[in-house]
Amino acid sequence: MNQLQEKECMKRAIKLAEFGMHTCKPNPRVGCVIVKEGKVIGEGWHKRAGGDHAEIMALKNCELNPEGSIVFVSLEPCTHQGRTPPCIEALIDANVSAVVFSSMDPNPEVSGRSIDMLNAAGIEVSHGLLEEESSELNIGFFHRMRFNRPFVRSKLGSSMDGKIALSNGESKWITSDASRKDVQNLRARSCATMTSNQTVLVDDPSMNVRIENFSTDDQPLRIVVDSSGKCSGNEKVFQLPGETMIHRDRANESLFEHLGSIEINNVLIESGPKMNGALLESGLIDELIIYMSPCILGSDAIDMFVFPAIEKLSDRFSFDIHDLHKIGTDMKITLRKKDV
Amino acid sequence: MNQLQEKECMKRAIKLAEFGMHTCKPNPRVGCVIVKEGKVIGEGWHKRAGGDHAEIMALKNCELNPEGSIVFVSLEPCTHQGRTPPCIEALIDANVSAVVFSSMDPNPEVSGRSIDMLNAAGIEVSHGLLEEESSELNIGFFHRMRFNRPFVRSKLGSSMDGKIALSNGESKWITSDASRKDVQNLRARSCATMTSNQTVLVDDPSMNVRIENFSTDDQPLRIVVDSSGKCSGNEKVFQLPGETMIHRDRANESLFEHLGSIEINNVLIESGPKMNGALLESGLIDELIIYMSPCILGSDAIDMFVFPAIEKLSDRFSFDIHDLHKIGTDMKITLRKKDV
Repeated sequence: MNQLQEKECMKRAIKLAEFGMHTCKPNPRVGCVIVKEGKVIGEGWHKRAGGDHAEIMALKNCELNPEGSIVFVSLEPCTHQGRTPPCIEALIDANVSAVVFSSMDPNPEVSGRSIDMLNAAGIEVSHGLLEEESSELNIGFFHRMRFNRPFVRSKLGSSMDGKIALSNGESKWITSDASRKDVQNLRARSCATMTSNQTVLVDDPSMNVRIENFSTDDQPLRIVVDSSGKCSGNEKVFQLPGETMIHRDRANESLFEHLGSIEINNVLIESGPKMNGALLESGLIDELIIYMSPCILGSDAIDMFVFPAIEKLSDRFSFDIHDLHKIGTDMKITLRKKDV
Repeated sequence: MNQLQEKECMKRAIKLAEFGMHTCKPNPRVGCVIVKEGKVIGEGWHKRAGGDHAEIMALKNCELNPEGSIVFVSLEPCTHQGRTPPCIEALIDANVSAVVFSSMDPNPEVSGRSIDMLNAAGIEVSHGLLEEESSELNIGFFHRMRFNRPFVRSKLGSSMDGKIALSNGESKWITSDASRKDVQNLRARSCATMTSNQTVLVDDPSMNVRIENFSTDDQPLRIVVDSSGKCSGNEKVFQLPGETMIHRDRANESLFEHLGSIEINNVLIESGPKMNGALLESGLIDELIIYMSPCILGSDAIDMFVFPAIEKLSDRFSFDIHDLHKIGTDMKITLRKKDV
């Protein structure tokens, strides 16, 4: 196969991985394409933790004997017994001739181990093809593996002058329908959403995914940070199907470490300026997604981030622009922390 | 010629027009391409008011007799005697066979008149090809012709949370080198720049174009709005080569009407939150160009627009997103008033 064909196969594997976007948590999203004599003979993807991994599904789906085939997989095949047996064994048993994987296993203790095992079985291995795309797909999982805490994404809707509501609190709606629909996708791909007691008491948000046919089992965990115990438990967020966790302390590093320990890959913050300000100051926001409407609300309106005045520009909180595009009549701006 | 070839010729005419970007004010930017037997035989553009129009320069530059040629010009050829004789006469005298122009003359009193004159002389005419691009090039000139006042563009540099300085006034520099260089281009294409006495007293800005080989004659008029007479005249803006106008009243509609009357096509506002807030409230800002740095300065920092609190979201000031792209490490966001 030439490079272009290999790239096409890996693109397809990544595309397949995306089918697990909303369902495979806490596992990574993985896709697999098996090619024999220049023809795709099997495809698979990981749908749900405890179910077949992408490689197994692709092997099962093969329309020809996979012996001698090339296997394209978006993540390094697992070498250990988890909820399911290791994929490496299945690939060796199937007598495939080569394995091309994209991202390395993010767990430093097993990363690259598959290469030795496949080589020992006489199977050619290469990796790194479209690594950026496949890593992006699993940024939360990778983050948890590396740092033992979730990837923290905060979503805000604002005006061009950085305001999230009028001074009287009116905020419905600053951003367009298209932006608000997109938020449903952000939620659907999150393991958890998080807000403050203040937001719950003022806005009474649902915090759940409202996408057609979205299973209750896949609803992200809803986390309400309520250190002062102000919520009654009668608010919507506590009544809807799915799980809600009340956190009786501040949203600090130990909360996120706890979330990592219960296999939360990524958290979507949907909260007000105080919580966002505090998390920003603590360095806990990995990504900001800002839906910005091309309107001006003026200096009296409510700011995005509240924290004590900084004295020097060098103390500002800096990000990199990861993505930037129009969405409906708004802009969607994705900023990423410099060291993520 | 087929459509694609015609489009290429008009693109080239518009490209040529851009050569006059910094120099032809208060005239519009115009370019012209003359084609005979499928080959470009002459090109021209308008460099400076009082000098040859694009059509005349292209005719003079023709390497073959232009008789029977097709003339592509980015703006409707002039039919009246201005600083120079009408181009229509020159085209008729040259016996060209067809004229394709892009934008109509924005002056409603003469708009379309060239069509009758050319037809009467037996010359084919068509118009509207790449009209959006050619109009964009002359947005200021068109605006002045239509409304008797300049196109008003306000440029701001801000953080992601809409702040233009720390609470202690520190603002150098929120945006990147690339953004600040781009501002030089904005100035260079402006007939005037405008600021407030407060900005002059606090920042002592130069307000001039600092681009290599930029002629002093082409420096935009610098306008300082100083209704309270606080400036001493010793500030930089008054000392540098080029003209500075002190306006001893507020920046209101009558100021802009005056600027229209002295052939100012476009004004670049580079000022603080009070002037920007007041202009926005008066509906006088046609375009906002925001250089936004991916950093957060917090709620205590200084806002982009100061004006009294609005009570209902429906009273917000809304724009359309005209353009959006990365510039250096920042974003450049161009917003346009809905009815411009």
